[in-house]
Formats: sequence, C-alpha cells, structure tokens
Amino acid sequence: MEKAEIANRIESLASKSIEKMYLNDFLLTWDKSMDELESVFAVAEILRGLRGQNISPRIFDSGLAVSIFRDNSTRTRFSFASACNLLGLTIQDLDEEKSQIAHGETVRETANMISFLADVIGIRDDMYLGAGHTYMKEVAESVEQGHQEGVLPQRPTLVNLQCDIDHPTQTMSDALHLINHFGGIEQLKGRKIAMTWAYSPSYGKPLSVPQGVIGLMTRLGMEVRFAHPEGYNVMPEVVDIAKNNCDEGSGSFIQTDSMAEAFEGADIVYPKSWAPFSVMEKRTELLRAQDHGGLKDLEKQCLENNRKFIDWECTEELMRKTNDGKALYMHCLPADITGVSCQRGEVEASVFDRYRVPQYIQAGYKPYIIAAMIFLAKTKQPVEALKKITDGANPRFTG
Amino acid sequence: MEKAEIANRIESLASKSIEKMYLNDFLLTWDKSMDELESVFAVAEILRGLRGQNISPRIFDSGLAVSIFRDNSTRTRFSFASACNLLGLTIQDLDEEKSQIAHGETVRETANMISFLADVIGIRDDMYLGAGHTYMKEVAESVEQGHQEGVLPQRPTLVNLQCDIDHPTQTMSDALHLINHFGGIEQLKGRKIAMTWAYSPSYGKPLSVPQGVIGLMTRLGMEVRFAHPEGYNVMPEVVDIAKNNCDEGSGSFIQTDSMAEAFEGADIVYPKSWAPFSVMEKRTELLRAQDHGGLKDLEKQCLENNRKFIDWECTEELMRKTNDGKALYMHCLPADITGVSCQRGEVEASVFDRYRVPQYIQAGYKPYIIAAMIFLAKTKQPVEALKKITDGANPRFTG
Amino acid sequence: MEKAEIANRIESLASKSIEKMYLNDFLLTWDKSMDELESVFAVAEILRGLRGQNISPRIFDSGLAVSIFRDNSTRTRFSFASACNLLGLTIQDLDEEKSQIAHGETVRETANMISFLADVIGIRDDMYLGAGHTYMKEVAESVEQGHQEGVLPQRPTLVNLQCDIDHPTQTMSDALHLINHFGGIEQLKGRKIAMTWAYSPSYGKPLSVPQGVIGLMTRLGMEVRFAHPEGYNVMPEVVDIAKNNCDEGSGSFIQTDSMAEAFEGADIVYPKSWAPFSVMEKRTELLRAQDHGGLKDLEKQCLENNRKFIDWECTEELMRKTNDGKALYMHCLPADITGVSCQRGEVEASVFDRYRVPQYIQAGYKPYIIAAMIFLAKTKQPVEALKKITDGANPRFTG
Repeated sequence: MEKAEIANRIESLASKSIEKMYLNDFLLTWDKSMDELESVFAVAEILRGLRGQNISPRIFDSGLAVSIFRDNSTRTRFSFASACNLLGLTIQDLDEEKSQIAHGETVRETANMISFLADVIGIRDDMYLGAGHTYMKEVAESVEQGHQEGVLPQRPTLVNLQCDIDHPTQTMSDALHLINHFGGIEQLKGRKIAMTWAYSPSYGKPLSVPQGVIGLMTRLGMEVRFAHPEGYNVMPEVVDIAKNNCDEGSGSFIQTDSMAEAFEGADIVYPKSWAPFSVMEKRTELLRAQDHGGLKDLEKQCLENNRKFIDWECTEELMRKTNDGKALYMHCLPADITGVSCQRGEVEASVFDRYRVPQYIQAGYKPYIIAAMIFLAKTKQPVEALKKITDGANPRFTG
Repeated sequence: MEKAEIANRIESLASKSIEKMYLNDFLLTWDKSMDELESVFAVAEILRGLRGQNISPRIFDSGLAVSIFRDNSTRTRFSFASACNLLGLTIQDLDEEKSQIAHGETVRETANMISFLADVIGIRDDMYLGAGHTYMKEVAESVEQGHQEGVLPQRPTLVNLQCDIDHPTQTMSDALHLINHFGGIEQLKGRKIAMTWAYSPSYGKPLSVPQGVIGLMTRLGMEVRFAHPEGYNVMPEVVDIAKNNCDEGSGSFIQTDSMAEAFEGADIVYPKSWAPFSVMEKRTELLRAQDHGGLKDLEKQCLENNRKFIDWECTEELMRKTNDGKALYMHCLPADITGVSCQRGEVEASVFDRYRVPQYIQAGYKPYIIAAMIFLAKTKQPVEALKKITDGANPRFTG
Repeated sequence: MEKAEIANRIESLASKSIEKMYLNDFLLTWDKSMDELESVFAVAEILRGLRGQNISPRIFDSGLAVSIFRDNSTRTRFSFASACNLLGLTIQDLDEEKSQIAHGETVRETANMISFLADVIGIRDDMYLGAGHTYMKEVAESVEQGHQEGVLPQRPTLVNLQCDIDHPTQTMSDALHLINHFGGIEQLKGRKIAMTWAYSPSYGKPLSVPQGVIGLMTRLGMEVRFAHPEGYNVMPEVVDIAKNNCDEGSGSFIQTDSMAEAFEGADIVYPKSWAPFSVMEKRTELLRAQDHGGLKDLEKQCLENNRKFIDWECTEELMRKTNDGKALYMHCLPADITGVSCQRGEVEASVFDRYRVPQYIQAGYKPYIIAAMIFLAKTKQPVEALKKITDGANPRFTG
C-alpha cells in the first residue's frame, strides 16, 4: 500500500463515530456499530500498510498484554502475540495451572491481580456453553471496577479471542478478506455466502465461528445461507441476531438443511464442522461434573450420529453449483481435508488446494485486526495518533 | 503524584547511604540497612508516580530477566513481569522440566549458562525448609564468581520472589501500603500490628510471610504481636531477628497464643494460615524422599490437628476489639474466606469485603517494589538516573 | 574490545562474499562458504564488543522470533532468547501441545500461520534420525513459498538450533572459542582435535555434536581424530563430508577406535557420549511407532553394551598424552562428570574442574553466534548496518 493510500484511509476515519471504542472492549461484533466495525477494518489495513512501508506503529514503550487461553490455539495465539508486539506490548500468559487460582480465588480478584500494569487482556474461553462470554464480561466488569476504585492505574481493554458465542477476531479477519477480495465493503452487499455445516471425524467443535459469521455477515448486507443437518442448530439467540440484522439492514438470512441448496449460486462458501447445540449443552454439563464416562458415551453417540452426515463435504461437484463455479472457499483453519488430515472430512483435497493461498491470506489479516481493536481502544484520538506515526516514520527495522 | 512531588522524592534519596545496593541482590530485608529499605520505598513511589505521569522509566534497551519459579505464583509472577517490562527487560522463564537440568548439572553451571545476557534473576523457591534461601545464595555466588572469572559480562542481580525464610517483595509492598495508609514511615512507629495465624482447610502454607512480616515490621518501630496456636511456631532464627530488631530500635515484639489478645487495640491485623515449623521440617524430608504415602499421612495428621483451631478466624467480633474497631486488615492474597472459597477459613466474608479495595491496593505496590529493587541494584547513581528519566520525559504511551 | 578493534573487524567484513546469506537460513555449516562462516565469527565478535561498550545493536523496533523446541534445552533456549532480545525481537514459543497441530495440520500450513509477523524461526528437532533436518527444510520451503505467494510480508530466516545432522550454533561457538583461544582462525590450521566418544550412564544422546564437529573442524584446516568404540559410528554422509573437506582443504581426518590414540599429542580434546547410529535408527522407528516396550528393551540392550566401554573416560592419565599434557578440553555441556553427576562418566572431575572456566566461556559465545547468523540473514548491507550502529552508539543501558 502506497503512503498516499495510507493517508487517505486515515482521513476516512475522521468521519466515523467511534468515541465509544475508547477504553472499551471487543467482545461481540453485534455490540459494535457499523462505524466501529468499519474503523477496525480501516485501521487494520493502515497498520498493515505501515508495516509494508517499514514504519513502526509502536505506541507503547512498555506495557503488558495478558493472555488467558483456556483452550488450545495456534493461529489466534500467534496473531495476538504479533499484534501486541507490533504496538509495543509484551505478552504475559496467565497459565492457570501454574497459578494459585484453583485456590478458590474470585474472578474479580484474579482480574485485578494480573492487571496492575496491563494495557490489554486477551481471552480464549470457548469450551463451555454459557461460560466464555460470561467470564469475559466478569473480567471486564472487574477491571472497570478496579480502575474506578483506584486499584488499577489504567483500564485494560479486553479482546475476545473466541468465546462460546462469537469469535470476532476470526470473523472480522474473514470479512476483511472478503472486502479486499471483492473490492470494498460496498461490494459485499447482496453477495451470497453459504455458511454450512460440514462433516468431520471429530466431535465437539465450538459454535462460535458459524455464530460469528451469521451475526456479522448479515450486517454487511450479505445474503447469508445457513445450512446444517437436523439437530446441528446453534444458539437461538444468535440466529435471532442474524434475523434482526436483516430486518434493520439490507442483508438476508436463509436457513436450510441442504448443503446443495446453500451452495446454489453462492459467491462465497464457508463449510465447517460444529457440534449440535444440544450436544454442547450436555457436554458442558458433563465437563463441569468432570464425568469422563459420560463424556465418552456422549462422544460415541455423537460420532455415530455424525456419521449419518458424512456426505456434507465441500466437493468439486458442489462447488460447480456456486456462482460461475467459482465461489470463494473459506475456512478458519485447520480444516479436515479428505484424504489429507482424515479419511473423510469437511472438504475435498482439490478444492482446499485451489483455495490454499487465499485462505492463508485470510488468516494473515488476524494480527492486524487484533492490533486495530487494541489501537482503537487505547488511543483517544486515533486519527491524530495514526498521523503522528505516519509523519514520524520511525522504522520497524533499521538494519 | 505531581511532578514536584516526584522531584522532591528524588532529592530525598540523595542523603541515603545506598552504595552497597549497587550490583547487589535483594534476598532478606534484614540484610538491608534502614537507608536501603527507605530507598526502595522511595524509588517504588517515584516509579509509580512517573507511570502516572506517562513517563517511561525504561533504562534497558534490551536485556533478559530470568525467572525461576519452583512453586506456583500469580501475583508475584505478574509483578515481576511488570517490573522488568517497565524497565525494558524481557522475561525468560527457566522451566526446569523443559531443560536439561535433571541431568545432574550443578547449580553453578546452570546459573552461568542462563546468565550470559541476563541483568536480573528472580527466584521463587519456598517449598523446602532450609532450601530456598540456600539455593538463592548459591546462585548469587555462582554468578558473582562467573562475573569475576570473565564468564559473564555483567553480574545479574538476584531478587528473592519468596524463599523458605522471607518474602521481601511481599512484605516491602505491605510496608509501603502501611506507609501510605498512615501518612509516612514515621507514622508507623508504635503502631500495633497483629501478625496472627488463622485457620485454613489447606495445609503446608509457607512460613515466609509471617517470618518476613515480623522481621520487617519490628524494624519499622511497630509493636508486633505474633500470635499462633501451640506448635505453629516459625523458624527460631527469625524470631531472634525480630527480637534483635526491637533491642536495637524502637519496635517491640510480643508473642501470644491468643488471637483475641493480639487483636486488642491493634491498628493493623494480618491473620494468615501457615504450617507448623516442625511439620514443614518433616514435610521437607518427605518431599526430598519423594515419599508420597508419608506426605499423605502427614497431611492427614496435620489437617486433623489443624481442625482444633478452626476458631482462629478473623471475625467481625474480633475486629471490634481492635483500635476503634477499625484496624486495617491485611492479607498477602489469596485468602481463604469463610463461605466464599471454603466453608470455614481465615476470615469472615464481611471483613474481607470491607477491606477488599485496600488489599488490592496493597498488592498493587509489588510491581513497583520489585522495579525499585532492580533499579537500585543496576544504577550506580540512582538519583542522577531518576533525574535523567524525569527530565527526558520519554512517554510510555504515545497514542 | 576497544572501539578501534570493533571498527577494524567491521572493515574486514567488507571483503567477504556474503550476499547469499541475505534472507537465507543457517541449517548446516557445510552449506556455507568459508567467507560466510568467517563473517559469522566476525559479526559475533563485533556484537559482543558492542555490548561490552554498552552500545545496543538493536535493529528491530518490533518483530517476532518463533522458537520450536521439540526436545529439552537450556543453553540453546537461553542463547536464542538472548540473541533475539539483543536485536529487538520478541520470542514467541510454539508449544505444539497447546496448539491445534495434532489435528493433522500440514507443516506448510503451520509454518505460514506462525510467520505472518515473524522475522526469525529457531528450531530444535534432534530426536529422530532423518527427521529434524528434513523438517527444517520443509519449514524453510514453506515460508519461502508463502513469501512468494504474498501470504507472508517477509521471509523469516531459519536457524537450526540442533537437528539430527548438525548443531551449528554449538559448533560455531566451539570454533569461535578455539579461534580466540589460539589467537586467530589461521592458528587453527594443523591443530589436532580429538573428537572422541566417551562413556555415559545414559543412552540415546544425539549425534549432531560429533557430526557437526567433524564437519566443521575439518574445514578450518584442523587434524580431526575421530575415535569411538566399534558400532558407535555416526551418519556415513557426514563422515564423507569430513573427508571431502580434507580433500578440498588443508584439514585431515583420521578415524580410530582408540581414545588414547586420538589423544596422543592432541591440542584439543572433545570427549562426549553419543548413541550408535544403528541404535538411533532403531530408536527412531520405535519412537515413531510409540512402541514403549520396544524402547525399554532397546535401552536395556544398549546400556549393557555401553557398559563394555566404561573405560572411555577423559582421565588425567589420558590428558597427559596430549600436547604438552595441556590440550584444551571441550564439552558442549552438560557433561557427565565421574563422581559428580554420576558414578562413572565422560570425564574425571579434576579434568573437568580445571577446564570449567574455558568451557563456560565457550558456551558464552552462543548468543552472539546466533545473533550474528540472524544479523547476516536480515541485513542487506551488514557492513553499513554495523557502522550505523557503531556511529549511533545508542546505549543498551542508560541507568
């Protein structure tokens, strides 16, 4: 991106109403206004452009970014680390096993104890339905209170790195990928996206990606086709959000139990495995009860049921049904690829391979999306701050 | 804190005899002179003030701070990370399980191998009586020798992040909390502090906090009331230190086996569970012998014995006995709160709650205390260094 | 090192042909030209000299250095952390257990996913014969491809932190130690180095150190005596490389099954345990098959066989056979020291002790060797970059 283009994008931010982002969190995309979402896209692209120009957008000389990963992560962990590092923050991971938290400590106490010099807190908590988002809100309220009580010299900003409801750093990266692929956010209006379930030999994958996608893409004016086998529904509240978005905007939301129907004429397809909502609810109970036998039984049942839908695979044949046979294939990765990572999976190998590069590019937006979320939460005057960075032109690498 | 006040505090340092802190370690508070302790308090407050003014006290452009945690930690781990980050050092954790140390390597060798570019080493080693402090001294001697032999280009400074004897970063934070609460170090003279045992359903908590408190607060001229059930005594050497402090200064030291007696008219109460010294000695033997059966038996016995003292709880009733019923309640956290983290614990929930904010503020001094210990060990002329930082006014955050 | 000396060494770099190092990896020393190896030595010494002058060679304002440790490490882990920190990069460790990699993800995918903002990737993978180097090449090809495809904005540089074939950061540090000990690289020509097997009560140590040593020291014109009991041979390809080096240069390579013969008149001795090549091959099979019983049996057999060679110990008596009885004793550490870390080991305690300081100094070169490898891979014009650093004289520590 040329410097002039970077400057243009900075200018475009000036008209946005984004005051509420200051010192605020990023938990769910549907809590944010369109101006706020568009500003995240804009700042992400500006930061990416600046890095391309070897200009360092480092705004912190020191400061901690706390990470709390209650589930495995590679992509998001590295994206969060990259984003924080780009802005000058150092990651300090809260490893709950090596801490004294088991000890019955309250969330409020832990949240304050780790935040004395923390500017950001990133949390992944997607294992238990009804838990992750609740936990994040409790942490957010705790540090807000801590700041008001004079315990914390600053109010750390929370970034949701995947909860039980939404996965905003993923879906915002997905959306930025679409914006760049189709040539602008306006170009997304009316585009048909098939967010469909797909078969995987594993079980219990979180619902946050499909939920996040239907909750975000309906806002961007897309025609969202949501397809899954019977029983594989997601949280009803999020379906309502998707429908509401359509009532209020130009998007539309169609539910179907046929993958083929969803693919028909689609511009984008996003086939991905997830666990049925009711199974996730049961699983949550069993996990809480540490009922390992029960979990095993549930897994067995669930996998048996799953096998009935082994045909929900993104094949070349299905791809031919899409718009001009050339829909953009998306996945949050890692995908279960037939014949590569498993015998039968979410996607045929040749489809995956053809879209490998776009998918990697899609994943590559995440560090900048996260950095943009942090930037907009920490800078009171983001336009001025970005101009200062651009004018200063402090090199990231001087070798 | 206003800039003028920061400047005053820097000036006040000029009269202190603190040359010996340079390139030295911080292992036990009673190894330090009053001038040295007061300088730690002063620098901690200056660094906190500078952060409040958005001035970065970063003195390192690069450099490692090695952390060695031989026991779980949240508060201290994050405090050490925060302190090092504030000064520009990067934490490198020595995970003894992922290293080749089991291999029979000597402490001297490991200490040198991790220190080639290390400016600081922080160690928590509080599990074994007779071990933690001994280990820290061995590490300190090893890096001292390594520096003299030309192996290490610099002599890393050790900070005791809790050993079997003392927990100086905790007690110094506690003391700074008292100084600020009561309006100055002079205001602590004659204050009555009840350092008392309290019941917890767990077993085997380290002795370093009560030991550190009686060893430090007697030096600050306080009347220290040390109360515990029969058998729950601490290391006799530390009791001697507390008594000596009183002989040499204005403090006093009273031992009793009644919580109520200790609370009578107290200005401050610090009720906290710990293991009996003799149990810790036996536990140390069993841990060394990896005698898991023996440890279980000991735990059983100890918990049975413990239960006899279930009434050692900091209740509202007991709090009413303190000075004006308003003694400052302290805890190093996390506390065992009756009805919250356990059925019966160290403190009644309403007492804990009333003092929650002051306790969190107390904990919040630790990053600055640690940063001050490091600052005073690394800068040859701390007054000049602090003036340079203040004059330079390099912002911590530029967004 | 004086500033004038630093300047001289920078000047000496100007005549070297090192263009190919730019954006390239460091996997095997024998892939590099003599000019390239000499430049690594020179830059390592310049960086060490600059640190001694309190000049910061930080060339990155931000950026990640990814570490992947598939085996335990202390020395190399801290050296890599130190090197990256010195240049301004932040370590982000890929913990394969906490990631989603098990999931059947390809190496290409993981390599790209962790590299969006990564400037360096350091890998230790020495457990499986035929695997480590292959894995590193696959990672290198993946990020090269990712960069060409526009997925990665930069091409991260790989540093081999020990593979199944070579351990270049170790052997280059060893060589720099020899250069400084004997007064220049020219002084190494014709020196006799005994790279010999030695007894250890453990089993299965990697072959990469002896292989790396014979592969590198033959290039430096040394007379390499390679001694081991029957059956303890190393990869034949590397023996061929050592022989080829001698055909093309002034070095010589002698194989023997007598430790005494190798020590006769030696200037340097490097006695170290390793597993027989055939055992490593079998072990690799068993590890891959997760055949724990088979591994146990193999270990038993191997240790029994090992015991036959308990006399392969670097004793005072053997040392007396060396040149003037004063050969330089080397070890990559930690060593198995008789009577210290084990009953019978690789070296007599008095020999080890006499050479303890030189060994620690030897180990201390590793951070600078790694930093030099990175520096030469990232800077297009290293001479200019080093001059800029020297002229700028930005202090590492300003306290």
